[in-house]
Amino acid sequence: MDQPIGVIDSGVGGLTVASELIRQLPKEQLIYLGDTLRCPYGPRPKQEVVEYTWEMVDFLLNKNIKMLVVACNTATAYTLDELRANLSIPVIGVIQPGARAAIKMTNNRRIGVIGTEGTINSKAYPLALQSINSNIVVNDLACPKLAPMVEEGNLTGSEAYDIVYQSLKPLKDKNHIDTLILGCTHYPLVKDLIQEVIGKHVHVISSGEETAREISTILSFNKKLYNGTRIPKHQFFTTGRLHVFESIANKWLQQPLGFVKNINLSEKSFNK
Amino acid sequence: MDQPIGVIDSGVGGLTVASELIRQLPKEQLIYLGDTLRCPYGPRPKQEVVEYTWEMVDFLLNKNIKMLVVACNTATAYTLDELRANLSIPVIGVIQPGARAAIKMTNNRRIGVIGTEGTINSKAYPLALQSINSNIVVNDLACPKLAPMVEEGNLTGSEAYDIVYQSLKPLKDKNHIDTLILGCTHYPLVKDLIQEVIGKHVHVISSGEETAREISTILSFNKKLYNGTRIPKHQFFTTGRLHVFESIANKWLQQPLGFVKNINLSEKSFNK
Repeated sequence: MDQPIGVIDSGVGGLTVASELIRQLPKEQLIYLGDTLRCPYGPRPKQEVVEYTWEMVDFLLNKNIKMLVVACNTATAYTLDELRANLSIPVIGVIQPGARAAIKMTNNRRIGVIGTEGTINSKAYPLALQSINSNIVVNDLACPKLAPMVEEGNLTGSEAYDIVYQSLKPLKDKNHIDTLILGCTHYPLVKDLIQEVIGKHVHVISSGEETAREISTILSFNKKLYNGTRIPKHQFFTTGRLHVFESIANKWLQQPLGFVKNINLSEKSFNK
Repeated sequence: MDQPIGVIDSGVGGLTVASELIRQLPKEQLIYLGDTLRCPYGPRPKQEVVEYTWEMVDFLLNKNIKMLVVACNTATAYTLDELRANLSIPVIGVIQPGARAAIKMTNNRRIGVIGTEGTINSKAYPLALQSINSNIVVNDLACPKLAPMVEEGNLTGSEAYDIVYQSLKPLKDKNHIDTLILGCTHYPLVKDLIQEVIGKHVHVISSGEETAREISTILSFNKKLYNGTRIPKHQFFTTGRLHVFESIANKWLQQPLGFVKNINLSEKSFNK
């Protein structure tokens, strides 16, 4: 299956999924679209997130993708069921892979989840966790300051530590979780800080790694893995400023992007 | 989806998969069939393993299973493609989940695999690993003494240590693997010994955990997870001696089996 895998995100956070995909499935070709202009999605009303997500999906469907990855927790929480019901290609979100990995890792069945307000208020993680295992106790917590902090490139130092510490404090004081799901694709960039604050005894689950693993499972199960010998050429699109996206992406992916382009989703002129 | 998940194995090794399934998906109901009478499959010719596996599959198809799990590496290596081509339900083997987990874990791309002669000679693991990522270097090694040792209940002590040490020695001397796949469902029972011999720096991948995780992924993706409130009643069948199977299974699953029965596959009288 020569077609590319499509990856959408509200901005740059989904690059943590793309990076893991490139590492775990190095033969596959990606088309990544980050809606950096309208990022973050977390505080937006559901209808707006649904509308923006469909605009991104329409863009990628025109690129003939074989699978759609919704690499944004907020968009997954609001649109996954609708996308699955309406598209003929496999659609993978970031919530269920993280939930399944946490269920595999936990020993005491107490799982913490951190994410944006949108993701946490949607209750998508508790629903996903408990639909698989109703004995799981979920402690979820919105951390509205973390994604903006990461998006600004503020990843180390005492200011970043303080923001992480204050954000996680309510969870640290609670119920002895042994597993913590990073329910926002930005958070793996500050995983070390989060691990330090929450304690070494807690398994910290990065949705990027887990989603890449499940993409591999689903592609393989559906016989859609690429099995030729090409050198993949990935394409990256952003709705925001090109050089900002490019400099963050180069750093996060630890390789030059190759093809990267700015697009205007609302112009609807992208279909040609 | 109320139907049970069917799990087949050459003997008791697949109980490590069943045990993880019960832990990760506690609402699901299992029917397990272990061909203890004709165990081990590892040294048998391919045609014999294919024939025996189909006998087990026919038995479970009559129990109206919603998914088939081939929880035996040798049977997976020899029959997975054929089963998938011929059955209308999803079929999951133990090789690809272990391969994918190893690809996720490795940093230096050097992966070791241990298994029975049948599994190792089939080259199923190198094929699975390299079809996903052609940069992976695989060091595989047949360990014919390990499965019989586990089947005999010989799990600790100096004799077991010596057998594990002598078995793994050729791999230890080689090429600095950072990840080792336990390519036989018996081996998780001596995972601690294997870890001690191979060294703390090597990630040891248990196919049972990983297969359970992928079963969850595939059932969820196909909307076949059970979502009611029943208390599941598992059923266990063996072609060998009932009390031997029962005593090993009780110990491995760390719970009483409930329903367990001896059957004769070659009689073909099981369909009523």
